[in-house]
Amino acid sequence: MKTIQSTKNELIKEIKKLHKKKERERTQRFLIEGFHLIEEAWKNECEITQVFFTNRGLNEWGEFFKHFPEEQKTLVSDEVMHTLSELPTPQGICAVVKMKEQKMTEWSGGWLLLDNVQDPGNVGTMIRSADAFGLSGVILGKGTADIYSGKVLRAMQGSNFHLPIVQMELQESIDLLKKHKVTVYGTELNERAISLSEVQKTKNYAIILGNEGTGVSSEILEKTDANIFIEMKGNAESLNVAIAASILMYSFSV
Amino acid sequence: MKTIQSTKNELIKEIKKLHKKKERERTQRFLIEGFHLIEEAWKNECEITQVFFTNRGLNEWGEFFKHFPEEQKTLVSDEVMHTLSELPTPQGICAVVKMKEQKMTEWSGGWLLLDNVQDPGNVGTMIRSADAFGLSGVILGKGTADIYSGKVLRAMQGSNFHLPIVQMELQESIDLLKKHKVTVYGTELNERAISLSEVQKTKNYAIILGNEGTGVSSEILEKTDANIFIEMKGNAESLNVAIAASILMYSFSV
Repeated sequence: MKTIQSTKNELIKEIKKLHKKKERERTQRFLIEGFHLIEEAWKNECEITQVFFTNRGLNEWGEFFKHFPEEQKTLVSDEVMHTLSELPTPQGICAVVKMKEQKMTEWSGGWLLLDNVQDPGNVGTMIRSADAFGLSGVILGKGTADIYSGKVLRAMQGSNFHLPIVQMELQESIDLLKKHKVTVYGTELNERAISLSEVQKTKNYAIILGNEGTGVSSEILEKTDANIFIEMKGNAESLNVAIAASILMYSFSV
Repeated sequence: MKTIQSTKNELIKEIKKLHKKKERERTQRFLIEGFHLIEEAWKNECEITQVFFTNRGLNEWGEFFKHFPEEQKTLVSDEVMHTLSELPTPQGICAVVKMKEQKMTEWSGGWLLLDNVQDPGNVGTMIRSADAFGLSGVILGKGTADIYSGKVLRAMQGSNFHLPIVQMELQESIDLLKKHKVTVYGTELNERAISLSEVQKTKNYAIILGNEGTGVSSEILEKTDANIFIEMKGNAESLNVAIAASILMYSFSV
Protein backbone atom coordinates (compact mmCIF):
# COMPACT_ATOMS: atom_id res chain seq x y z
CA MET A 1 0.00 0.00 0.00
CA LYS A 2 1.38 3.41 -0.92
CA THR A 3 1.65 6.27 1.56
CA ILE A 4 0.97 9.95 0.90
CA GLN A 5 1.95 12.58 3.48
CA SER A 6 1.66 15.77 1.45
CA THR A 7 -1.49 17.66 0.45
CA LYS A 8 0.47 18.83 -2.62
CA ASN A 9 0.69 15.28 -4.01
CA GLU A 10 -0.69 15.09 -7.57
CA LEU A 11 -3.08 12.21 -6.85
CA ILE A 12 -4.50 14.03 -3.82
CA LYS A 13 -4.97 17.20 -5.86
CA GLU A 14 -6.79 15.13 -8.51
CA ILE A 15 -9.10 13.45 -5.99
CA LYS A 16 -9.86 16.73 -4.24
CA LYS A 17 -11.22 18.07 -7.52
CA LEU A 18 -14.11 15.60 -7.13
CA HIS A 19 -15.62 18.11 -4.68
CA LYS A 20 -16.63 19.94 -7.86
CA LYS A 21 -19.55 18.81 -10.02
CA LYS A 22 -17.74 19.51 -13.28
CA GLU A 23 -14.90 17.14 -12.39
CA ARG A 24 -17.34 14.46 -11.20
CA GLU A 25 -19.12 14.64 -14.54
CA ARG A 26 -15.89 14.61 -16.52
CA THR A 27 -14.45 11.58 -14.71
CA GLN A 28 -17.78 9.85 -13.93
CA ARG A 29 -16.51 9.35 -10.38
CA PHE A 30 -17.51 10.65 -6.95
CA LEU A 31 -16.07 10.70 -3.46
CA ILE A 32 -17.75 9.12 -0.44
CA GLU A 33 -16.71 9.46 3.20
CA GLY A 34 -17.03 7.11 6.12
CA PHE A 35 -17.15 3.35 6.38
CA HIS A 36 -20.95 3.06 6.29
CA LEU A 37 -21.28 4.60 2.81
CA ILE A 38 -18.33 2.66 1.43
CA GLU A 39 -19.78 -0.58 2.75
CA GLU A 40 -23.13 0.26 1.12
CA ALA A 41 -21.39 0.97 -2.19
CA TRP A 42 -19.54 -2.34 -1.96
CA LYS A 43 -22.67 -4.34 -0.98
CA ASN A 44 -24.51 -2.88 -3.95
CA GLU A 45 -21.77 -3.80 -6.40
CA CYS A 46 -20.51 -0.35 -7.18
CA GLU A 47 -17.00 -0.13 -8.50
CA ILE A 48 -14.70 1.38 -5.85
CA THR A 49 -11.57 2.64 -7.59
CA GLN A 50 -9.58 4.08 -4.66
CA VAL A 51 -9.67 3.89 -0.87
CA PHE A 52 -7.82 6.32 1.41
CA PHE A 53 -7.19 5.54 5.08
CA THR A 54 -5.58 7.40 7.92
CA ASN A 55 -3.69 5.23 10.39
CA ARG A 56 -6.74 5.16 12.63
CA GLY A 57 -8.99 4.29 9.67
CA LEU A 58 -6.70 1.47 8.60
CA ASN A 59 -6.70 -0.02 12.10
CA GLU A 60 -10.46 0.10 12.30
CA TRP A 61 -11.48 -0.97 8.78
CA GLY A 62 -8.33 -2.34 7.10
CA GLU A 63 -9.51 -5.93 7.58
CA PHE A 64 -12.63 -5.32 5.49
CA PHE A 65 -10.43 -4.27 2.54
CA LYS A 66 -7.88 -7.07 2.80
CA HIS A 67 -8.76 -8.56 -0.61
CA PHE A 68 -8.88 -5.13 -2.22
CA PRO A 69 -5.97 -4.53 -4.69
CA GLU A 70 -2.98 -2.96 -2.92
CA GLU A 71 -2.45 -0.40 -5.69
CA GLN A 72 -5.92 1.02 -5.05
CA LYS A 73 -5.35 1.55 -1.31
CA THR A 74 -3.49 4.54 0.08
CA LEU A 75 -2.44 5.41 3.61
CA VAL A 76 -2.57 9.17 4.11
CA SER A 77 -1.65 11.63 6.85
CA ASP A 78 -4.40 13.28 8.92
CA GLU A 79 -3.63 16.50 7.09
CA VAL A 80 -4.24 14.86 3.69
CA MET A 81 -7.50 13.34 4.95
CA HIS A 82 -8.61 16.81 6.05
CA THR A 83 -8.01 18.02 2.49
CA LEU A 84 -10.07 15.20 0.98
CA SER A 85 -12.85 15.44 3.54
CA GLU A 86 -15.68 17.98 3.64
CA LEU A 87 -16.34 17.27 7.33
CA PRO A 88 -14.88 19.11 10.32
CA THR A 89 -13.87 15.76 11.87
CA PRO A 90 -13.19 13.22 9.09
CA GLN A 91 -13.84 9.56 9.91
CA GLY A 92 -10.45 8.41 8.65
CA ILE A 93 -11.66 6.65 5.51
CA CYS A 94 -12.92 7.81 2.12
CA ALA A 95 -13.24 6.25 -1.31
CA VAL A 96 -13.67 7.06 -4.98
CA VAL A 97 -16.64 5.33 -6.61
CA LYS A 98 -17.48 5.02 -10.30
CA MET A 99 -20.90 6.31 -11.29
CA LYS A 100 -23.29 3.66 -12.58
CA GLU A 101 -25.53 4.34 -15.49
CA GLN A 102 -29.00 4.82 -14.00
CA LYS A 103 -31.82 3.45 -16.10
CA MET A 104 -35.51 2.92 -15.66
CA THR A 105 -36.19 -0.68 -16.55
CA GLU A 106 -39.72 -0.94 -15.28
CA TRP A 107 -42.45 1.55 -14.56
CA SER A 108 -44.64 0.03 -11.88
CA GLY A 109 -44.68 1.10 -8.24
CA GLY A 110 -43.98 4.57 -6.87
CA TRP A 111 -41.88 7.35 -8.37
CA LEU A 112 -40.62 10.58 -6.85
CA LEU A 113 -40.04 13.45 -9.29
CA LEU A 114 -38.09 16.54 -8.23
CA ASP A 115 -38.56 19.84 -10.03
CA ASN A 116 -35.77 22.30 -9.20
CA VAL A 117 -35.32 21.27 -5.54
CA GLN A 118 -32.17 23.13 -4.60
CA ASP A 119 -31.18 22.34 -1.03
CA PRO A 120 -28.80 19.35 -0.94
CA GLY A 121 -30.09 18.25 2.48
CA ASN A 122 -33.67 18.25 1.20
CA VAL A 123 -32.80 16.26 -1.94
CA GLY A 124 -30.78 13.71 0.03
CA THR A 125 -33.43 13.28 2.73
CA MET A 126 -36.16 12.79 0.10
CA ILE A 127 -34.17 10.05 -1.62
CA ARG A 128 -33.57 8.37 1.76
CA SER A 129 -37.34 8.44 2.38
CA ALA A 130 -38.09 7.17 -1.15
CA ASP A 131 -35.84 4.22 -0.37
CA ALA A 132 -37.47 3.68 3.04
CA PHE A 133 -40.96 3.55 1.54
CA GLY A 134 -39.96 1.21 -1.26
CA LEU A 135 -40.36 3.50 -4.24
CA SER A 136 -39.20 2.26 -7.64
CA GLY A 137 -36.99 5.26 -8.35
CA VAL A 138 -36.40 8.98 -8.30
CA ILE A 139 -36.36 11.29 -11.34
CA LEU A 140 -34.41 14.54 -11.08
CA GLY A 141 -35.56 17.40 -13.26
CA LYS A 142 -33.60 20.52 -14.11
CA GLY A 143 -32.14 22.65 -11.32
CA THR A 144 -32.20 19.89 -8.71
CA ALA A 145 -29.11 19.58 -6.49
CA ASP A 146 -26.41 17.19 -7.75
CA ILE A 147 -26.77 13.86 -5.94
CA TYR A 148 -23.00 13.26 -6.02
CA SER A 149 -22.20 16.31 -3.89
CA GLY A 150 -20.99 15.56 -0.36
CA LYS A 151 -24.04 17.06 1.33
CA VAL A 152 -26.54 15.07 -0.74
CA LEU A 153 -24.51 11.86 -0.34
CA ARG A 154 -24.45 12.30 3.45
CA ALA A 155 -28.20 12.97 3.65
CA MET A 156 -28.98 9.94 1.43
CA GLN A 157 -27.07 7.65 3.83
CA GLY A 158 -26.44 5.15 1.05
CA SER A 159 -29.96 5.11 -0.39
CA ASN A 160 -28.52 6.13 -3.77
CA PHE A 161 -27.10 2.61 -3.97
CA HIS A 162 -30.55 1.04 -3.47
CA LEU A 163 -32.78 2.57 -6.13
CA PRO A 164 -32.33 4.16 -9.56
CA ILE A 165 -31.96 7.94 -9.59
CA VAL A 166 -32.35 9.25 -13.11
CA GLN A 167 -31.74 12.69 -14.61
CA MET A 168 -34.49 13.45 -17.08
CA GLU A 169 -36.59 16.28 -18.42
CA LEU A 170 -39.72 16.12 -16.22
CA GLN A 171 -42.14 16.85 -19.08
CA GLU A 172 -40.76 13.83 -20.92
CA SER A 173 -40.82 11.59 -17.85
CA ILE A 174 -44.45 12.51 -17.11
CA ASP A 175 -45.43 11.49 -20.66
CA LEU A 176 -43.59 8.19 -20.26
CA LEU A 177 -45.10 7.50 -16.83
CA LYS A 178 -48.62 8.21 -18.07
CA LYS A 179 -48.07 5.97 -21.09
CA HIS A 180 -47.17 3.17 -18.65
CA LYS A 181 -50.40 3.74 -16.65
CA VAL A 182 -48.74 5.46 -13.74
CA THR A 183 -50.97 8.12 -12.11
CA VAL A 184 -49.02 11.36 -11.87
CA TYR A 185 -49.68 13.70 -8.93
CA GLY A 186 -48.36 17.22 -8.58
CA THR A 187 -48.26 19.08 -5.28
CA GLU A 188 -49.81 22.50 -4.79
CA LEU A 189 -50.09 24.71 -1.74
CA ASN A 190 -53.71 25.69 -2.30
CA GLU A 191 -57.12 24.21 -1.88
CA ARG A 192 -57.79 23.91 -5.60
CA ALA A 193 -55.83 20.71 -5.12
CA ILE A 194 -57.19 17.51 -3.54
CA SER A 195 -56.33 16.91 0.12
CA LEU A 196 -54.02 13.98 0.72
CA SER A 197 -56.51 12.11 2.90
CA GLU A 198 -59.10 12.24 0.09
CA VAL A 199 -56.85 10.94 -2.67
CA GLN A 200 -57.55 7.39 -3.85
CA LYS A 201 -54.10 5.88 -3.51
CA THR A 202 -53.01 3.90 -6.55
CA LYS A 203 -50.32 1.23 -6.71
CA ASN A 204 -48.53 2.87 -9.64
CA TYR A 205 -48.03 6.51 -8.83
CA ALA A 206 -45.62 9.40 -9.28
CA ILE A 207 -45.44 12.39 -6.93
CA ILE A 208 -43.83 15.64 -8.04
CA LEU A 209 -42.28 18.00 -5.51
CA GLY A 210 -40.92 21.42 -6.40
CA ASN A 211 -38.59 24.23 -5.53
CA GLU A 212 -38.34 25.36 -1.88
CA GLY A 213 -39.54 28.87 -2.66
CA THR A 214 -41.78 28.55 -5.69
CA GLY A 215 -43.08 24.96 -5.64
CA VAL A 216 -43.73 22.88 -8.75
CA SER A 217 -43.71 24.98 -11.93
CA SER A 218 -47.09 25.71 -13.47
CA GLU A 219 -46.27 24.02 -16.82
CA ILE A 220 -45.68 20.80 -14.95
CA LEU A 221 -48.77 21.10 -12.72
CA GLU A 222 -50.84 21.34 -15.91
CA LYS A 223 -49.60 17.98 -17.13
CA THR A 224 -50.48 15.95 -14.01
CA ASP A 225 -53.51 13.70 -13.47
CA ALA A 226 -54.27 15.50 -10.21
CA ASN A 227 -52.60 17.80 -7.71
CA ILE A 228 -52.46 17.15 -3.98
CA PHE A 229 -52.06 19.31 -0.88
CA ILE A 230 -51.34 18.18 2.67
CA GLU A 231 -53.90 19.35 5.24
CA MET A 232 -52.41 21.72 7.83
CA LYS A 233 -54.31 22.83 10.92
CA GLY A 234 -51.80 25.18 12.47
CA ASN A 235 -50.14 28.48 11.68
CA ALA A 236 -47.10 27.54 9.60
CA GLU A 237 -47.45 28.74 6.01
CA SER A 238 -45.94 25.61 4.54
CA LEU A 239 -44.02 22.42 5.21
CA ASN A 240 -40.38 21.79 4.41
CA VAL A 241 -40.32 20.12 0.97
CA ALA A 242 -38.59 16.94 2.21
CA ILE A 243 -41.23 16.64 4.95
CA ALA A 244 -44.06 17.08 2.45
CA ALA A 245 -42.53 14.51 0.07
CA SER A 246 -42.08 11.97 2.85
CA ILE A 247 -45.62 12.32 4.22
CA LEU A 248 -46.93 11.75 0.69
CA MET A 249 -44.72 8.73 0.05
CA TYR A 250 -45.62 7.22 3.46
CA SER A 251 -49.34 7.73 2.78
CA PHE A 252 -49.09 5.97 -0.59
CA SER A 253 -47.08 3.12 0.93
CA VAL A 254 -49.51 2.03 3.69
CA MET B 1 -31.43 57.01 13.15
CA LYS B 2 -27.81 56.33 14.03
CA THR B 3 -25.31 55.02 11.51
CA ILE B 4 -22.54 52.48 12.12
CA GLN B 5 -19.84 51.91 9.51
CA SER B 6 -17.25 49.99 11.50
CA THR B 7 -17.29 46.34 12.51
CA LYS B 8 -15.19 47.39 15.54
CA ASN B 9 -18.06 49.46 16.97
CA GLU B 10 -18.88 48.42 20.55
CA LEU B 11 -22.60 47.91 19.89
CA ILE B 12 -21.87 45.72 16.87
CA LYS B 13 -19.40 43.66 18.89
CA GLU B 14 -22.05 43.21 21.61
CA ILE B 15 -24.75 42.14 19.12
CA LYS B 16 -22.39 39.75 17.36
CA LYS B 17 -21.91 37.91 20.65
CA LEU B 18 -25.54 36.77 20.31
CA HIS B 19 -24.27 34.14 17.86
CA LYS B 20 -23.18 32.34 21.06
CA LYS B 21 -25.65 30.47 23.27
CA LYS B 22 -24.02 31.68 26.49
CA GLU B 23 -24.56 35.32 25.58
CA ARG B 24 -28.13 34.66 24.46
CA GLU B 25 -28.88 33.09 27.83
CA ARG B 26 -27.16 35.87 29.77
CA THR B 27 -29.00 38.66 27.96
CA GLN B 28 -32.24 36.75 27.25
CA ARG B 29 -32.06 38.06 23.69
CA PHE B 30 -31.55 36.50 20.26
CA LEU B 31 -30.82 37.66 16.74
CA ILE B 32 -33.10 37.07 13.75
CA GLU B 33 -32.33 37.74 10.11
CA GLY B 34 -34.54 38.67 7.22
CA PHE B 35 -37.81 40.59 7.02
CA HIS B 36 -40.05 37.51 7.16
CA LEU B 37 -38.87 36.42 10.62
CA ILE B 38 -38.92 39.98 11.99
CA GLU B 39 -42.47 40.45 10.74
CA GLU B 40 -43.49 37.15 12.40
CA ALA B 41 -41.90 38.28 15.69
CA TRP B 42 -43.73 41.60 15.48
CA LYS B 43 -47.12 40.02 14.56
CA ASN B 44 -46.78 37.69 17.53
CA GLU B 45 -46.07 40.53 19.95
CA CYS B 46 -42.46 39.76 20.68
CA GLU B 47 -40.38 42.64 21.96
CA ILE B 48 -37.96 43.77 19.25
CA THR B 49 -35.19 45.78 20.91
CA GLN B 50 -32.98 46.69 17.94
CA VAL B 51 -33.25 46.67 14.14
CA PHE B 52 -30.26 46.93 11.81
CA PHE B 53 -30.65 47.87 8.14
CA THR B 54 -28.29 48.23 5.25
CA ASN B 55 -29.19 50.97 2.77
CA ARG B 56 -30.90 48.40 0.61
CA GLY B 57 -32.78 46.98 3.60
CA LEU B 58 -33.92 50.43 4.66
CA ASN B 59 -35.25 51.18 1.19
CA GLU B 60 -37.14 47.94 1.04
CA TRP B 61 -38.52 47.66 4.59
CA GLY B 62 -37.98 51.08 6.26
CA GLU B 63 -41.67 51.98 5.84
CA PHE B 64 -42.76 49.00 7.97
CA PHE B 65 -40.66 50.34 10.87
CA LYS B 66 -41.67 54.01 10.60
CA HIS B 67 -43.32 54.05 14.05
CA PHE B 68 -40.46 52.14 15.62
CA PRO B 69 -38.36 54.31 18.03
CA GLU B 70 -35.48 56.01 16.20
CA GLU B 71 -32.95 55.12 18.91
CA GLN B 72 -33.62 51.42 18.30
CA LYS B 73 -32.94 51.61 14.57
CA THR B 74 -29.45 51.58 13.09
CA LEU B 75 -28.24 51.98 9.54
CA VAL B 76 -25.12 49.87 8.99
CA SER B 77 -22.61 49.33 6.20
CA ASP B 78 -22.71 46.12 4.15
CA GLU B 79 -19.52 45.08 5.93
CA VAL B 80 -21.17 45.46 9.35
CA MET B 81 -24.22 43.48 8.15
CA HIS B 82 -21.87 40.69 7.05
CA THR B 83 -20.46 40.59 10.59
CA LEU B 84 -23.91 40.35 12.15
CA SER B 85 -25.22 37.83 9.63
CA GLU B 86 -24.56 34.10 9.55
CA LEU B 87 -25.57 33.89 5.89
CA PRO B 88 -23.31 34.12 2.84
CA THR B 89 -25.66 36.71 1.31
CA PRO B 90 -27.39 38.69 4.10
CA GLN B 91 -30.87 40.07 3.35
CA GLY B 92 -30.02 43.56 4.57
CA ILE B 93 -32.09 43.48 7.76
CA CYS B 94 -31.72 41.83 11.15
CA ALA B 95 -33.13 42.41 14.61
CA VAL B 96 -32.59 41.63 18.27
CA VAL B 97 -35.60 40.06 19.98
CA LYS B 98 -36.23 39.54 23.68
CA MET B 99 -36.94 35.94 24.70
CA LYS B 100 -40.42 35.32 26.05
CA GLU B 101 -40.97 33.07 29.01
CA GLN B 102 -42.43 29.87 27.58
CA LYS B 103 -45.06 28.22 29.74
CA MET B 104 -47.48 25.38 29.33
CA THR B 105 -50.87 26.72 30.28
CA GLU B 106 -53.00 23.86 29.05
CA TRP B 107 -52.34 20.22 28.34
CA SER B 108 -54.85 19.15 25.73
CA GLY B 109 -54.02 18.51 22.07
CA GLY B 110 -50.74 17.26 20.65
CA TRP B 111 -47.24 17.58 22.08
CA LEU B 112 -43.87 16.92 20.53
CA LEU B 113 -41.08 15.90 22.93
CA LEU B 114 -37.45 15.92 21.80
CA ASP B 115 -34.87 13.78 23.58
CA ASN B 116 -31.32 14.83 22.69
CA VAL B 117 -32.01 15.74 19.03
CA GLN B 118 -28.77 17.42 18.04
CA ASP B 119 -28.97 18.65 14.47
CA PRO B 120 -30.24 22.26 14.35
CA GLY B 121 -31.92 21.72 10.97
CA ASN B 122 -33.81 18.69 12.30
CA VAL B 123 -34.97 20.51 15.44
CA GLY B 124 -36.10 23.56 13.48
CA THR B 125 -37.91 21.52 10.82
CA MET B 126 -39.74 19.48 13.48
CA ILE B 127 -40.97 22.65 15.20
CA ARG B 128 -42.14 24.01 11.82
CA SER B 129 -44.09 20.77 11.26
CA ALA B 130 -45.50 20.84 14.82
CA ASP B 131 -46.82 24.31 14.03
CA ALA B 132 -48.20 23.19 10.64
CA PHE B 133 -50.14 20.31 12.20
CA GLY B 134 -51.55 22.42 15.03
CA LEU B 135 -49.76 20.87 17.98
CA SER B 136 -50.14 22.55 21.37
CA GLY B 137 -46.42 22.82 22.01
CA VAL B 138 -42.95 21.35 21.93
CA ILE B 139 -40.92 20.19 24.94
CA LEU B 140 -37.14 20.11 24.62
CA GLY B 141 -35.28 17.64 26.81
CA LYS B 142 -31.59 17.65 27.59
CA GLY B 143 -29.07 17.73 24.75
CA THR B 144 -31.46 19.14 22.17
CA ALA B 145 -30.12 21.92 19.91
CA ASP B 146 -30.70 25.48 21.15
CA ILE B 147 -33.74 26.95 19.38
CA TYR B 148 -32.25 30.45 19.41
CA SER B 149 -29.28 29.50 17.23
CA GLY B 150 -29.34 30.89 13.69
CA LYS B 151 -29.70 27.49 12.04
CA VAL B 152 -32.68 26.45 14.15
CA LEU B 153 -34.33 29.86 13.74
CA ARG B 154 -33.99 29.64 9.96
CA ALA B 155 -35.42 26.11 9.81
CA MET B 156 -38.36 27.07 12.07
CA GLN B 157 -39.34 29.89 9.66
CA GLY B 158 -41.08 31.78 12.47
CA SER B 159 -42.97 28.82 13.95
CA ASN B 160 -41.27 29.52 17.31
CA PHE B 161 -43.50 32.60 17.52
CA HIS B 162 -46.66 30.50 17.09
CA LEU B 163 -46.51 27.81 19.76
CA PRO B 164 -44.86 27.38 23.18
CA ILE B 165 -41.46 25.68 23.16
CA VAL B 166 -40.51 24.69 26.68
CA GLN B 167 -37.23 23.40 28.11
CA MET B 168 -38.00 20.66 30.62
CA GLU B 169 -36.68 17.39 31.98
CA LEU B 170 -38.53 14.83 29.81
CA GLN B 171 -39.14 12.39 32.69
CA GLU B 172 -40.94 15.17 34.56
CA SER B 173 -42.92 16.31 31.52
CA ILE B 174 -44.08 12.73 30.82
CA ASP B 175 -45.42 12.47 34.40
CA LEU B 176 -47.25 15.76 34.01
CA LEU B 177 -48.68 14.83 30.61
CA LYS B 178 -49.93 11.48 31.89
CA LYS B 179 -51.49 13.18 34.92
CA HIS B 180 -53.42 15.39 32.49
CA LYS B 181 -54.68 12.33 30.55
CA VAL B 182 -52.39 12.80 27.57
CA THR B 183 -51.35 9.49 25.97
CA VAL B 184 -47.56 9.42 25.68
CA TYR B 185 -45.98 7.60 22.71
CA GLY B 186 -42.30 6.82 22.32
CA THR B 187 -40.73 5.92 18.99
CA GLU B 188 -38.65 2.79 18.49
CA LEU B 189 -36.98 1.37 15.43
CA ASN B 190 -38.05 -2.20 16.01
CA GLU B 191 -41.13 -4.34 15.67
CA ARG B 192 -41.66 -4.71 19.41
CA ALA B 193 -43.34 -1.36 18.93
CA ILE B 194 -46.82 -0.83 17.41
CA SER B 195 -46.92 0.19 13.75
CA LEU B 196 -48.20 3.70 13.12
CA SER B 197 -51.14 2.56 11.00
CA GLU B 198 -52.35 0.32 13.85
CA VAL B 199 -52.21 2.93 16.60
CA GLN B 200 -55.58 4.23 17.84
CA LYS B 201 -55.03 7.96 17.46
CA THR B 202 -56.12 9.95 20.50
CA LYS B 203 -56.94 13.67 20.63
CA ASN B 204 -54.55 14.33 23.50
CA TYR B 205 -51.20 12.81 22.66
CA ALA B 206 -47.49 13.32 23.04
CA ILE B 207 -44.89 11.88 20.67
CA ILE B 208 -41.25 11.52 21.71
CA LEU B 209 -38.45 11.57 19.13
CA GLY B 210 -34.84 10.91 19.98
CA ASN B 211 -31.23 11.39 19.05
CA GLU B 212 -30.20 10.99 15.37
CA GLY B 213 -27.85 8.12 16.16
CA THR B 214 -29.25 6.40 19.22
CA GLY B 215 -32.98 7.20 19.23
CA VAL B 216 -35.05 7.77 22.36
CA SER B 217 -33.21 6.72 25.52
CA SER B 218 -34.36 3.46 27.11
CA GLU B 219 -35.29 5.07 30.44
CA ILE B 220 -37.74 7.26 28.60
CA LEU B 221 -39.17 4.46 26.41
CA GLU B 222 -40.01 2.59 29.63
CA LYS B 223 -42.18 5.44 30.88
CA THR B 224 -44.41 5.77 27.80
CA ASP B 225 -47.94 4.38 27.31
CA ALA B 226 -46.88 2.75 24.04
CA ASN B 227 -44.08 2.93 21.50
CA ILE B 228 -44.62 3.37 17.77
CA PHE B 229 -42.63 2.54 14.65
CA ILE B 230 -43.25 3.72 11.11
CA GLU B 231 -43.65 0.90 8.58
CA MET B 232 -40.89 0.89 5.96
CA LYS B 233 -41.01 -1.33 2.87
CA GLY B 234 -37.70 -0.46 1.28
CA ASN B 235 -34.01 -0.77 2.01
CA ALA B 236 -33.17 2.32 4.04
CA GLU B 237 -32.29 1.40 7.62
CA SER B 238 -34.12 4.36 9.11
CA LEU B 239 -35.81 7.67 8.41
CA ASN B 240 -34.40 11.09 9.16
CA VAL B 241 -35.73 12.06 12.62
CA ALA B 242 -37.53 15.20 11.37
CA ILE B 243 -39.23 13.11 8.67
CA ALA B 244 -40.33 10.49 11.22
CA ALA B 245 -41.65 13.17 13.60
CA SER B 246 -43.61 14.88 10.83
CA ILE B 247 -45.21 11.68 9.51
CA LEU B 248 -46.34 10.90 13.07
CA MET B 249 -47.73 14.38 13.69
CA TYR B 250 -49.51 14.38 10.32
CA SER B 251 -51.06 10.97 11.03
CA PHE B 252 -52.36 12.15 14.41
CA SER B 253 -53.72 15.36 12.91
CA VAL B 254 -55.98 13.87 10.19
